[in-house]
Amino acid sequence: MGAFKFRGAYNAISALSPDARRAGVVTFSSGNHAQAIALAGRMLGVATTIIMPLDAPAAKIAATRGYGATIVSFDRYTQDRDAIGARLASEQGLTLIPPYDHPDVIAGQGTAAKELIEETGPLDALLVCVGGGGLLAGSALGARALSPACLVYGVEPEAGNDGQQSFRSGAIVRIAVPKTIADGAQTPSLGALTFPIIQDKVADMLTVSDGELIETMRFFAERMKIVVEPTGCLAAAAAFSAKIDIKGKRVGVIISGGNIDLSAFARFVA
Amino acid sequence: MGAFKFRGAYNAISALSPDARRAGVVTFSSGNHAQAIALAGRMLGVATTIIMPLDAPAAKIAATRGYGATIVSFDRYTQDRDAIGARLASEQGLTLIPPYDHPDVIAGQGTAAKELIEETGPLDALLVCVGGGGLLAGSALGARALSPACLVYGVEPEAGNDGQQSFRSGAIVRIAVPKTIADGAQTPSLGALTFPIIQDKVADMLTVSDGELIETMRFFAERMKIVVEPTGCLAAAAAFSAKIDIKGKRVGVIISGGNIDLSAFARFVA
Repeated sequence: MGAFKFRGAYNAISALSPDARRAGVVTFSSGNHAQAIALAGRMLGVATTIIMPLDAPAAKIAATRGYGATIVSFDRYTQDRDAIGARLASEQGLTLIPPYDHPDVIAGQGTAAKELIEETGPLDALLVCVGGGGLLAGSALGARALSPACLVYGVEPEAGNDGQQSFRSGAIVRIAVPKTIADGAQTPSLGALTFPIIQDKVADMLTVSDGELIETMRFFAERMKIVVEPTGCLAAAAAFSAKIDIKGKRVGVIISGGNIDLSAFARFVA
Repeated sequence: MGAFKFRGAYNAISALSPDARRAGVVTFSSGNHAQAIALAGRMLGVATTIIMPLDAPAAKIAATRGYGATIVSFDRYTQDRDAIGARLASEQGLTLIPPYDHPDVIAGQGTAAKELIEETGPLDALLVCVGGGGLLAGSALGARALSPACLVYGVEPEAGNDGQQSFRSGAIVRIAVPKTIADGAQTPSLGALTFPIIQDKVADMLTVSDGELIETMRFFAERMKIVVEPTGCLAAAAAFSAKIDIKGKRVGVIISGGNIDLSAFARFVA
């Protein structure tokens, strides 16, 4: 469905008991995890309910509905999606599969770094985009297991550097929903499960500006002929703007996903 | 360099004698063959001179210059590029490698269909975009050799259906430079070498509108996450608009290239 989120969603739904599968699952997501759960649910024959912010990209809402999910909308600036998810789960007997703070989701996301290193051999560094930290935690576990000397870096939007603040202070810092074009990284904090893994396995947390994300989107469209959404550009933007010294090093960069309204994409790259 | 043209250009330059390599090559192209010759020349250590129309996409001119070629500009609506090419070739001792009407270019372009069928097995049909017919002639030779029952179709822009007229009348029809967004197919006629191959090996010639090309570009950007230039969308547009009956059939579609100004791309997909 155009993003790494499918890895975690499919892994988590696959691991459910037959009873839990029959009852169905619920999740909240700004978009890619929503589509991932919806598609994985359809493939595995499990009913899905997705709690999506009213201002999620129209392409992501339409795609999620297209995969057969039931959509419940909420206002991400005033309502608490965790509370809505918990209520639906208890009222309808659904299993809540959160977008990042879940062991099976983290393990699924980690398969991208695993596949990368299996193909390239050991790396000196690995750059990974960060919202709630599921991909970063999974990637760090996978990378450090297969390539122990690899330094793993998380990359956030400047406006939403809660992960960097948390990493450097040693405790989870929660911020207001950040305003950034990287809508997949508009998470207010790392998770209770992802944070300790990140603290243990990650070398540092970096940030890039929205302007650097746009330059990176333009590079991908013009030279690589691929459409990458802003959140998917975070790690590559950090490499291009040399936030760490990568000269002469073997550096892995995880690029994902490609779900963006064409009107927004056109505005960014024009 | 973002299009199939590299296949033919590299094959043709590789086949030159050491003396001809030392003297250098010249070609004319609306863009992708220009970049292909420039890049292949750089890789093989052969100097390249490219005759490009003044209104070629800026991204293609910049990329061609970036690969180290010397650029000679001309007005495609009033000047004859063949004459300019012939003059430069004789004055400077350069070998002219035309964009499609050359055996080694046709053979090189045919490798895409060969690789496709080697990977997928026999096909019922193969759809291929057409400008001067180099890709179509090479693809038809390759496809009919490896998958003899495969019906090969060429696809042109409606405004530039000289190939369809030629195919159906049995003689090369030359038209004025067509106005279409498919700038790679703004060729006035098929070639003396490509036409007889097409007549012998191709099942029919189809056309699509510029509007159908834009719909196809949008599909590739939104669902496949790839940037495809209008000319590269021709074959897929014919499949999407069901110009032939493809239901239940194994249909190959050649999609290439991705060289388009981002400002134009943004205008088309917005």
